[in-house]
Amino acid sequence: MASIFTKIVKGEVPAYIVAETENCIAFLDIFPLVEGHTLVIPKIEVDDLFDLPDEIYSELWTLAKKVAFAIKSAYPCIKVGVAVVGLEVPHAHIHLMPINQIDDLNFSKPKLKLSPEVFENSRLKISAFMS
Amino acid sequence: MASIFTKIVKGEVPAYIVAETENCIAFLDIFPLVEGHTLVIPKIEVDDLFDLPDEIYSELWTLAKKVAFAIKSAYPCIKVGVAVVGLEVPHAHIHLMPINQIDDLNFSKPKLKLSPEVFENSRLKISAFMS
Repeated sequence: MASIFTKIVKGEVPAYIVAETENCIAFLDIFPLVEGHTLVIPKIEVDDLFDLPDEIYSELWTLAKKVAFAIKSAYPCIKVGVAVVGLEVPHAHIHLMPINQIDDLNFSKPKLKLSPEVFENSRLKISAFMS
Repeated sequence: MASIFTKIVKGEVPAYIVAETENCIAFLDIFPLVEGHTLVIPKIEVDDLFDLPDEIYSELWTLAKKVAFAIKSAYPCIKVGVAVVGLEVPHAHIHLMPINQIDDLNFSKPKLKLSPEVFENSRLKISAFMS
């Protein structure tokens, strides 16, 4: 069965998309740890990030760099934290999120519940800084 | 003042080095969350990962991919987790660690205290799988 992320790639499930390249796409995490929490994924459904073909792995990190700049512009913060965990959805994905303290990157914490309006505003803010 | 990582790069501070390329180096985190926890860093002292020049940023993630395979071979695990936090040492560094549950990647947890023998054994195990 297609992963939830493949359904997003195919447009079968809606998402707050902030950027897209030929082989990769970035959208807001619907279960965010902080506002601005974004996922960057390859369009092909590969479970483990490190099993991606080199050229797509490289394209993914190149897009992540651009998205990180946009997040930092939209959400002023000390750093944009990066995490790849991969114990839940079996489709490689990079978490990017504005962080000001170590606990902002703690996946054991409860996730935020944001309204569609907040998500859409976040999408617009981050997208506006994508070059 | 040079960062602790620059001192490692210059050989002024010892480290359990597992891999090195022209512009990057990988060594065991001396304050590990789990055994096998490794840092991959650029030799140049740049605070923010996303401020690295594109070619070094790319070399860094390429090395991270190879180190991740070596970690997974040395320490069988569900995934090799990735984290970039950057709130402590002001020298960009990628954390790679074997993970089997989400809490293995929780930086709010106390760090492990390992003996020099365990570190050296870990260095040998991971290095052995570097191609």
